[in-house]
Parts: sequence; structure tokens; C-alpha cells
Amino acid sequence: MVTSNYAQLGRTREVPLTEGTSRIEAFSDGVFAIAVTLLILEIRLQHAGVEGSLWTGLLALWPYYFAFVLSFFVILVTWIAHHDLMRLVRATNRPVQLANGCALLYVTFIPFPTAVLAAHLGGAEASTAVAFYCGTFVFGSGAFNLLVATITRAQLFRPEVDAQTIRRIRRGYRITFTIYVAATLIALVAPWVALAINVAVRLHLLHIRYQPAPQVP
Amino acid sequence: MVTSNYAQLGRTREVPLTEGTSRIEAFSDGVFAIAVTLLILEIRLQHAGVEGSLWTGLLALWPYYFAFVLSFFVILVTWIAHHDLMRLVRATNRPVQLANGCALLYVTFIPFPTAVLAAHLGGAEASTAVAFYCGTFVFGSGAFNLLVATITRAQLFRPEVDAQTIRRIRRGYRITFTIYVAATLIALVAPWVALAINVAVRLHLLHIRYQPAPQVP
Amino acid sequence: MVTSNYAQLGRTREVPLTEGTSRIEAFSDGVFAIAVTLLILEIRLQHAGVEGSLWTGLLALWPYYFAFVLSFFVILVTWIAHHDLMRLVRATNRPVQLANGCALLYVTFIPFPTAVLAAHLGGAEASTAVAFYCGTFVFGSGAFNLLVATITRAQLFRPEVDAQTIRRIRRGYRITFTIYVAATLIALVAPWVALAINVAVRLHLLHIRYQPAPQVP
Amino acid sequence: MVTSNYAQLGRTREVPLTEGTSRIEAFSDGVFAIAVTLLILEIRLQHAGVEGSLWTGLLALWPYYFAFVLSFFVILVTWIAHHDLMRLVRATNRPVQLANGCALLYVTFIPFPTAVLAAHLGGAEASTAVAFYCGTFVFGSGAFNLLVATITRAQLFRPEVDAQTIRRIRRGYRITFTIYVAATLIALVAPWVALAINVAVRLHLLHIRYQPAPQVP
Repeated sequence: MVTSNYAQLGRTREVPLTEGTSRIEAFSDGVFAIAVTLLILEIRLQHAGVEGSLWTGLLALWPYYFAFVLSFFVILVTWIAHHDLMRLVRATNRPVQLANGCALLYVTFIPFPTAVLAAHLGGAEASTAVAFYCGTFVFGSGAFNLLVATITRAQLFRPEVDAQTIRRIRRGYRITFTIYVAATLIALVAPWVALAINVAVRLHLLHIRYQPAPQVP
Repeated sequence: MVTSNYAQLGRTREVPLTEGTSRIEAFSDGVFAIAVTLLILEIRLQHAGVEGSLWTGLLALWPYYFAFVLSFFVILVTWIAHHDLMRLVRATNRPVQLANGCALLYVTFIPFPTAVLAAHLGGAEASTAVAFYCGTFVFGSGAFNLLVATITRAQLFRPEVDAQTIRRIRRGYRITFTIYVAATLIALVAPWVALAINVAVRLHLLHIRYQPAPQVP
Repeated sequence: MVTSNYAQLGRTREVPLTEGTSRIEAFSDGVFAIAVTLLILEIRLQHAGVEGSLWTGLLALWPYYFAFVLSFFVILVTWIAHHDLMRLVRATNRPVQLANGCALLYVTFIPFPTAVLAAHLGGAEASTAVAFYCGTFVFGSGAFNLLVATITRAQLFRPEVDAQTIRRIRRGYRITFTIYVAATLIALVAPWVALAINVAVRLHLLHIRYQPAPQVP
Repeated sequence: MVTSNYAQLGRTREVPLTEGTSRIEAFSDGVFAIAVTLLILEIRLQHAGVEGSLWTGLLALWPYYFAFVLSFFVILVTWIAHHDLMRLVRATNRPVQLANGCALLYVTFIPFPTAVLAAHLGGAEASTAVAFYCGTFVFGSGAFNLLVATITRAQLFRPEVDAQTIRRIRRGYRITFTIYVAATLIALVAPWVALAINVAVRLHLLHIRYQPAPQVP
């Protein structure tokens, strides 16, 4: 019986096996850490495109600083949300690895819409750039909804996580998805409002997830 | 006796030793995570090369999005395959480290053929670009075949992994290699068919390896 | 009671949970390692901007080597300081994760002021570039002060860390902040003096923190 | 007594402490993995600089492929050597962290001389480029000699590592340093011979260190 042999592998003590969620978390952490650090490569003095002193050039880069800080914050909150989700999970299977891959695809994509946002924030096509930026979060939220649905379907949540908590998590992810769709549409007419909605959603997420955080003694 | 001293080191409890496959897995995971995240650096608005609105420019980048998603998927499946292989291994030696290095050389190389693919997918030399892209997988599959052969020769598979499983794994890797060679030749006359074959192989790999995945209770 | 369920999760033995400070340290280590390695991308032969032999070009890049080594040293000392701080911490909560995020925002930003410094070190606007570079450390030191304050307020230092040690740590971080502000102002009139002050502070930090380093037997 | 308190921290079981060599190894592994993956960013189709078909362009990039594979191999062997060294070490202190930082400075620098090598390998200034490339290894070997000397002076080798082994390791590093100096000088008159010497040294290092590798049962 192959399956029981494999299950037994996990209990061998001499050479520890990477199993459960540890290696997928390590890989995901790596992707989050790299994506967040690559953001800086989009800030370049040549982008300032102004004549004058170095101070003038550094100040003219404000849309790049803004987009950098905003996307840094977005990736950080996404990392925390991923962290909070995965600690409720007891193991992974192939579908979960793939759904997690979709979530990571979104994370690695973020530097590109960030660069588009930075290049057009003060210009005539700001609404297009912001809509593209916000649309990325619609895709990302879809990937996270898929991840939660996949974990639920395979019954991979820890036994301590009761059905009500799972329902609450899934409803939260669905609501967030709806807000991101709305923000993308709003971006077409009021880009700054759309960005403010995105920041507000993240601040709210940080707040409501604070309660169930584990109290390590 | 130096060897027994070293072997004893592994059992010291005070300061844990990085031994077995843990550090090679951590290093490999790092390379996979970075390679997959660097892919986004190839998508740049300047590559659109069209006059018109920002939307037109963003749409004109479709070959870059396509190549990005395709290579992301390829690296993700390769990471899963590497993961599945290494958990059957009880320890590494120098030849395994070198063969694993060849596999990682392939992974770190992927962003370049991806950029070539993206730049030529809609153009006159699409077949050349796709053949170069597919040829990379021939090299990569060769490296993975070498890795499996090296592990087998040094008898580093875990005792629970029986000879039949090892034969099945090796045959699987050889078949995949043959398909990649065929896809590279097909790319010269029918590039999209070659790309479809590559996607199909990965989907199949995900499927057939799903069965022996460990069932953590 | 949700909280006690979660707290119990931490004690499950079958699948180890990432809790306490281990995952935040791993994520931070990743960001530090990537930021320090991305510095090299700013050194390019084209930046030499001189006619003549390859040796002449390589020598003309001295401001880039200087800025590279300086920022490498700064990030290394910051990593050691972060390491020393986090090992005194028993757990993290949401505010600590956010304050640590601010510290990492600073770390990921460093490659940009480094590039500005390298491009202007030998030029007419060296004082502006150095002031911008030093100003980054004011922000970074502010983030670290916030991190220490957040850890203190939430009483997340280990029980073995007594109140006097905490006071000493906090005072040290406040003094460092003041010196960085002073160095930034000095940079406007004497850029090399400001850089020397920054190096001296780091050397001093390495020295005074050397004493309480753990003596692993 | 502050010191004993800290030493006691290390024995707390509830929240594992990053101590000994684990966190410095994790950070170093990250730097190695990133540096090796960044090498690919230097290969760009624009560097081919030739008219003609895509195949012609891809073939004209041979110096870039060569430099990529060579530096990948160098970093891989350096990682293995670092790995082999650190597993003989029981703990780190501040001087070891700094000496290790010098070794990592060398590793992060490698992509730049690699780019210089690739751009000039087939040109008139190949000898200058190769000498610069080889000179980097002189610096790197110096850093590793410093690291070994620092570990020895602080008596941080594991008790199982006897004085004779330490002497053999130190002598090996000194000999390697001398060879790298010679290779750099040879590069000025015979660049390909210098590159061959560098490859031979790494192959030899892999061979002679193979014997004492731990035999995990």
C-alpha cells in the first residue's frame, strides 16, 4: 500500500520530511518577499523627466514613491492574510498547490501595474492606470477565493476550525471581491476614490482579523 | 575516523545541523521563488511599441502576459515535481548537489527564453522563438533525468521507496524528455501546437503524480 | 471561545505551526537578503560615461563601488540589529507586524538612494545626494523606534528581558535617530563628514551590542 | 548577569530561538540563491548587436551564455563550500557575522564582473575583462580566508573538529587564494588559460571535499 508508506515517511525521525504546509509556506514567503523588494526597481531618477536640480528631480518622482508605498502596503497585508489563512490549514494537496499558485501569480504580477500607476498617476490617463491597478486586485481576490474554496472542498482546515469560522472566512473573501470590482469601476471616473477604497479595505482587513490572532503565552 | 565523527555530528542535539535534504531544498526553493518572481521584470510598457491610448498599449502587451503566465505555470509545476522528488530522498551527496545544480541552472535560465518568446510571439519569427523556448525544456528535462539517475546510482532514495516506484519515476522522466524533443521539432513548423503540447505535458504530470501524494492525517 | 481554540492550535504536534516570531523573521530575512543583493544591479558599465579603455571605465565607476559597499554594510548592520532585537521578542501581534513592515519598507527603499548617491557622488550635487541618502536613515531609524515602542507597549519582550534592558535599548534607538537627523543636516554642507558619521554610528552599534550576544556553549 | 540570562534564552522550549548558525545560514542561502538567479538579467537579446535572423542573434549571445554558466557554477561551488564550512561551526559571534558579510559582499558582486566578462569576451579587451573577473575571486577568497581565521580565533569550530582538520582547511583556503592571484596575473596575457585554471580549481575543490562529507545512514 503506497499511501500508508508515504504517511509513515512523515513519522521517520532521522531525516525530517517537508510535508504539511511548511514548504508551501516557505515558497510563498519567498515570492512575497521578492515581489515586495522588486518594487524599488521601478523608481529611477530618469523617470523624473524634468530639467533642474537634483531636488526637483527627486520631488518630481512623487507618483513613484506613492505607488511604491501603496503596493508595499498591499503586498504586506496580502502576506499577513495568507499567513493567517495557512495557519488554519493542516495539509496541502495538488489542487491547493495550484490555487496557491494562482494567488502567487497575482503577487508576482503586482510590480507591473505598480509601474503603470506610477508612470501615469499625475497624467491625463490616470483613470486608466488606476483601473488597471485596481483590476489586478479583482484577479488577486478571485485567486484567494479559489484558494479558500479549494481548501474547504478538500476538508483541509484543521479540526479546531469549526464550520461557522469557515463560513465567516469565505463570506469575508466574497465581500472583498465585490468591493474590488466596485473600486475598479469607480476608478474609471474617480481614480483617487478607488485608491482610497482599496486602502480602506486593507485597513479593515487588518482590524477584523486581529481578534482571532493566537495569543502565544 | 573522520567519517564517523561527521555522522555523529548529525545526532548532536544542542546545535541542529543542516544535513539530509533540508538545506538543498531551502536553496532550491529560493531559486524557484526568485526565478518565478523575476519573470515580471520582462513586462514593460515600452515593449508595447504602439501609438495610442494607455488601454491600447496595455492590450498590445498580450504576448508578454501570455509568456509570463505560461512560464509561471511551468516553473510552478517544476517546483512541485522537484518537491515530490526530493521528499523521496533520504540524503544528498556531492554528485546529487551538482545534478541538482544543473536543474537549477535550467530554472534560472527560464526568464530569458520567456523574454524571447514574448518579444516574437506575434511576429514573423514566432517559430524560432517557440523552438528556443521549447529547447530550454529539453535541457531542463535532461537535467532532471540526470538528477534522478544520480540519486538512484548513489542509492539515496528512502528505504520505503521500492524498486518498482523508482523504475516508474525514471521511465516517466525519460518519456517526458522525448516529448519535449518532439515539441521542439514541431515548434519549427507549428509553434502553437508545440506550446499546447508543453501545457498538456504539465497538466498530465500534475495528474499522474497526484495519486502517491502523502495523506497527512 | 475562539481565542483558546487558536491558542491550542499552537500546541498541536503533528503539523508544526508557524507562530511566535519564526515566520516574521523568515520573511524579514528574505527581504534583507534580496535588498542587499539587488544593490549590484545599479552598477553598470554604461554609467562610467567615459571614453577610453575598459580599465578606465572600470575605474571611473568608483562612486558606484563605494555606494555599493556602503549600503551593503548598512543593510548588514541593520540585519544584525533586527536579528538582535527579534531574539528578545517572544511573539508578534498585528501592530508589531505593521511596524516591522515599516522597517522593511525602509530596507527595500535603500537601493534607490544608493543609486542616487552613486550617480552624484563625484558631481556638483553631491551634497543633495548625500542628504537624500542620509535622510533615508532618519526614516529607517524612525521605523525601528516605532517597532521597539510597539513591542514594548504590547509587552512582547521575553520575560528574561528586564525593564532596565528595555529602557537601554529604547534610549539607544532614540540617540541613533538624533544622530541620523544631525548627519542629514551636516550632509548639506559637508557630505563626506555626514557619510563618515553614518559609518561611525554603525561601527559603534556593532561594538556596544557585542557584549550581550548569547554565549552558546 | 546579562550573559547568563541570554544563554538561558536559548534553552526555552516554547518559542524556538534563532541561534547558533541557523539564521546566518538562512540569510547566506538567500543571498546565494538571489545572486545566482540575478545572473540571467544580464542576458538580453539587444546585447547581440547583430543584424539578421533571430537564430543569428541568439547564437551571437554565446559569450553571455558562457559567462552565465561559468558564474552559476562558481556561485554553486561557493555555496557548497560555505555549506561545508558552516556545518563544522557550532555558533557565531559578531566578528564571524562581519567576516561572513565580507564573503557575501563578494557573492553579491559577482553579477557585475560577469556582465563585464560577457560584454568583452569576444572583443579586443578580453584580457582586461577576464583579469577583472578573476580579480573578484581574489577578493572573494580573501573574504573566505578571513572567515575561517575568525572562526578559528574565536574557537567556534565544533568540538568534533580536531586541530589537524582545521589546519588542513586553512591551508586549503590559503593555497586557493594563491592560485586565484596567479590566475588574475595570467589573465592579462592568456585570458582563456586563466578561466580554465578557475574552473579546474573549483572541480578540484568539489573532489577533495567530497571525502569528509557526512554519510547519513
